[in-house]
Amino acid sequence: MNLINGEFREYIEVADRGFQYGDGLFETIAVINQQPVFLDRHINRIKAGCFRLQIPFPSIDLLITEAHQLSKQSTNGILKLILTRGSGGRGYRMPDIINTTRVFSLFPPPNYPVSLREQGIIARFCDTRLGLNPLLAGIKHLNRLEQIMARSEWTNPDIKEGIMLDINGHIIEGTMTNLFYYKNNTLYTSVLESSGVAGVIRGVIIEICSNAGFPVIEHTFTKKELLSAEEIFVCNSIIGIWPVKQIEQTCFKVGSETQKLQNKLAQFQIKAHKGDD
Amino acid sequence: MNLINGEFREYIEVADRGFQYGDGLFETIAVINQQPVFLDRHINRIKAGCFRLQIPFPSIDLLITEAHQLSKQSTNGILKLILTRGSGGRGYRMPDIINTTRVFSLFPPPNYPVSLREQGIIARFCDTRLGLNPLLAGIKHLNRLEQIMARSEWTNPDIKEGIMLDINGHIIEGTMTNLFYYKNNTLYTSVLESSGVAGVIRGVIIEICSNAGFPVIEHTFTKKELLSAEEIFVCNSIIGIWPVKQIEQTCFKVGSETQKLQNKLAQFQIKAHKGDD
Repeated sequence: MNLINGEFREYIEVADRGFQYGDGLFETIAVINQQPVFLDRHINRIKAGCFRLQIPFPSIDLLITEAHQLSKQSTNGILKLILTRGSGGRGYRMPDIINTTRVFSLFPPPNYPVSLREQGIIARFCDTRLGLNPLLAGIKHLNRLEQIMARSEWTNPDIKEGIMLDINGHIIEGTMTNLFYYKNNTLYTSVLESSGVAGVIRGVIIEICSNAGFPVIEHTFTKKELLSAEEIFVCNSIIGIWPVKQIEQTCFKVGSETQKLQNKLAQFQIKAHKGDD
Repeated sequence: MNLINGEFREYIEVADRGFQYGDGLFETIAVINQQPVFLDRHINRIKAGCFRLQIPFPSIDLLITEAHQLSKQSTNGILKLILTRGSGGRGYRMPDIINTTRVFSLFPPPNYPVSLREQGIIARFCDTRLGLNPLLAGIKHLNRLEQIMARSEWTNPDIKEGIMLDINGHIIEGTMTNLFYYKNNTLYTSVLESSGVAGVIRGVIIEICSNAGFPVIEHTFTKKELLSAEEIFVCNSIIGIWPVKQIEQTCFKVGSETQKLQNKLAQFQIKAHKGDD
């Protein structure tokens, strides 16, 4: 089910620059009990992305209204928002008048088994490397060929995520998640200045830890450093936090720090939701 | 005018992965006297791109038939071909069954004045830097935010092209062209192993020079080296070869080597066209 510029439709113009050039941004939002979770954070992030890419940002009220309109159609699900620079202009030059295209799509929930959250997942390292691109780093834009090629590397359904390195061999993120690790009483995650997507849940975790007086260290690290971690987890808006129990031959415990963060994230979500009402 | 999977339509499915992720490739082809120019080379390039991105390639005969079908609608124009991984699959994972989407679009000719070809153009250096991404380098894929941001840097209509450097300060290409320069009896162009699009006309020029016993040197160079050139030109399928007469404060002559190549390219095009018949 798609709401395209306010109308229920299944098609967009072939001239839309999202289709022609990947000229746009997106958000993937969990819907729980008919409510889009962390909607304000998703809207703020896509607004920041629009600013960086010079895409005119639609009215926040309109986005909130439409997000709720579609979320009400399903108890639980996934709400995806795409904003593009609209139709027009053959060639890279932005049109003089830009009518931003907005697309909300509602998908069924993914129905991941609870065991993934409780007992952890198996991950692998991807051979596909992320390029270095400070211009686009951090933004959840529509130029996603790197992730598609990385995700195509494996078909074994037991492997739930692929960990991506950049061309310098630094660990950046999962194909669809951000990655954290815990070692010597400190929580670490990757710097996202040259590659990667700064996820909403990554931001929430950084905020939770900062509020508790244990700031997350964003730094540059390699496979070797990651494999020496005590606990590892990946996160995104749909899965929340998944502990990583195994990467290739190396096993990790589902540790108490990861479990604590899972609980804190759940509480934070409830609080955010109440504040939203 | 668009021919989408063989039908005249203006819309594509919102679920098309070209729209969702920029998951596809394109070609921009000149139409002269109702004939798509260098069609075989464009089809070969997009076929090679499909192979690298694991997108099933449609029948060559079908593409040739549709290209001619649309080219006949206009004496001169621009024919654009887009191939995407089709619809399906929320998330980056490729669908199990891929139905490649093919879109041919016909645009009016750009009507550039002859003076650009004869007297040369003014270019500038872009501040937007190209990222480093060996995975995607050379391919004309649909992830084109870098070019869009670079092209947005200027509005002065006297400036016809922006020259892009990568994040290491190496000259790569124009926003919509490849770039060559002539110095000390040698023709140079950029290595495209980490960034850039390997253009069809770039390939033709390399072939013409190689056949004539004067191979083009592909190497890595900076602004300073480029500005010390005797002649500079940019090229693509629509403009052919444009001499560069000025980059910011530095002026260049429209030299005999560039003019010779313009003539050779025209002859090569006539010969290729005859061979096509």
